[in-house]
Amino acid sequence: MKANKTTFLVFIFLILSFQNILRGEADPLPSWNQGLIKDSIIQFVKETTDPKNENFIPVAERIAVFDQDGTLWVEQPIYTQVFFALDAIKAMALGHPEWKHEEPFKSILENNLEVLKNFKEQEVSKLIAATHSGLSVNRFKKKVRHWLNEAIHPHFKKPFTELVYQPMLEVIQYLKDANFKVYIVSGGGQEFMRAYAEKVYGIPPEQIIGTAGKVKYEYENGEPILKKLPEVLFVDDKTGKPEAINLMIGRKPYAAFGNSIGDKEMLEWTNSGPNKRLMLLVHHDDPIREYAYGPNSKIGTFPEPLMEEANQKKWHVVSMRKDWKIIFPFEKNP
Amino acid sequence: MKANKTTFLVFIFLILSFQNILRGEADPLPSWNQGLIKDSIIQFVKETTDPKNENFIPVAERIAVFDQDGTLWVEQPIYTQVFFALDAIKAMALGHPEWKHEEPFKSILENNLEVLKNFKEQEVSKLIAATHSGLSVNRFKKKVRHWLNEAIHPHFKKPFTELVYQPMLEVIQYLKDANFKVYIVSGGGQEFMRAYAEKVYGIPPEQIIGTAGKVKYEYENGEPILKKLPEVLFVDDKTGKPEAINLMIGRKPYAAFGNSIGDKEMLEWTNSGPNKRLMLLVHHDDPIREYAYGPNSKIGTFPEPLMEEANQKKWHVVSMRKDWKIIFPFEKNP
Repeated sequence: MKANKTTFLVFIFLILSFQNILRGEADPLPSWNQGLIKDSIIQFVKETTDPKNENFIPVAERIAVFDQDGTLWVEQPIYTQVFFALDAIKAMALGHPEWKHEEPFKSILENNLEVLKNFKEQEVSKLIAATHSGLSVNRFKKKVRHWLNEAIHPHFKKPFTELVYQPMLEVIQYLKDANFKVYIVSGGGQEFMRAYAEKVYGIPPEQIIGTAGKVKYEYENGEPILKKLPEVLFVDDKTGKPEAINLMIGRKPYAAFGNSIGDKEMLEWTNSGPNKRLMLLVHHDDPIREYAYGPNSKIGTFPEPLMEEANQKKWHVVSMRKDWKIIFPFEKNP
Repeated sequence: MKANKTTFLVFIFLILSFQNILRGEADPLPSWNQGLIKDSIIQFVKETTDPKNENFIPVAERIAVFDQDGTLWVEQPIYTQVFFALDAIKAMALGHPEWKHEEPFKSILENNLEVLKNFKEQEVSKLIAATHSGLSVNRFKKKVRHWLNEAIHPHFKKPFTELVYQPMLEVIQYLKDANFKVYIVSGGGQEFMRAYAEKVYGIPPEQIIGTAGKVKYEYENGEPILKKLPEVLFVDDKTGKPEAINLMIGRKPYAAFGNSIGDKEMLEWTNSGPNKRLMLLVHHDDPIREYAYGPNSKIGTFPEPLMEEANQKKWHVVSMRKDWKIIFPFEKNP
């Protein structure tokens, strides 16, 4: 019996060791430089997943939320979704001769970038309505996927889906491995993001929350379809973020990641719960490897008061320049 | 080495056998009578979870949706949520002397059941606005939980949360064990259901979809709160069900369970996908143990055309009288 028992114990030992190698010893965030922020993320996960720790969170309540544009992927010189809309307008222009004389379409067709950059809400709404509605949800997603396969970022000369931040992909994976349910909560279009988020971030459609248009259940050749309408159901930005988190999740998150004034209320909402919380803002301060914008730059949406609130509430502010070893996945295999 | 290898194999064999006992041999639906419907549910789960079967569904895509009122719990003589609203009106009446002369409040305060039963949408909206808004989401949920702890169903003389259908609880558990993500998709209020659904059905708040009111992010003593507004964001009934499924899940379900005309589009939408699907309607035909209503009764919302559509499309129609051994969990321990 002794031999059997020994074998059994060796077997168990090997399994546990293997798990340790898989889980414990490898660096979960290899693209992050050592420092306070990397340590804080790891500390947060260790404490909240340790049943003996006072900050333990039951698995069912482990919710983390990430903004997308500027937090998970590049948002300059304009949002990826706006690039998509501009290309869609150009592709649709033959069927709309009136657009030659009608804003915002006129400036788009004339490639007038200065006018484009100063579009107000009304013009963006027209743009989104013209390019994001009329189709069924399924056809719209196919259109987005087709575009993503072809389109190239004007500065980086890479497909947009390669311009995701490797350090943040590692945080997503690390949280997922720790049984956190990871959501994207973005001002971007919900259907737009759902077209690629599962492939690009490993986040399923039911965990993608974005600005949502209305849809209409109809029959097409006897088969039901959901047609996208040119009307907004809710805008998932600023106060709309905690409101949409309540609608779609119904729980307060324990961790929130953003980069702009549009994420302020989402971080405040996350921050307002009891127990340990993790709030983090990405500061774009790397004009060489990416862009520099924020409190100390002319462009961007990270104003000084947000930086002050972050400092006061001890939210982490990531310096892309100092905290990230590499920015994009393709830097791993140049 | 031979002894070690044998020990190892015995060890593996024991683990596998134990799994078989847990998973395979016990009847997953003990409250269902043997028959076509029970067999079909089991067949559906076996085929869709067997990687070698042509109807296999990857885990990430396993979505099942359940209506609530009349499908998971009793909806007669009026919806549980309406009982809640009526009691809330009575509790609030002292602060609203004008209600004595204003419908629908007047009839409620006078316990005029005949008028109550004939409330139109406008009166129900007034009722919901008066009782479901003004509070923060958290306080509203506490109010619902408090009421559920006290309230008693007038016919069954039991708490409402005990009037859930045991056979359906078994289907939910069986699907969850097979890695289906189970959602409630109900015309009932989303926050109302989220107050008890995790405890009663084992379904977390992020998988509860219901008619949703707008909320507003505000500060109360410097702390953020979400206040419920007296405005509807969307109605999760009829065509609103597939529309809300698209909004909140973004995938087409593989299984759908309902009981009324309000579930028609949800079942059609589920039915319209490729591969094997499971559609089921509960028919209330048991006047002794529960209620009888539907195509052949004067009350109810299961009209003849829905029964015809179900027959034509081979959706399962559960006879509560014939298919269910017991109806409520308390019948197990009378």
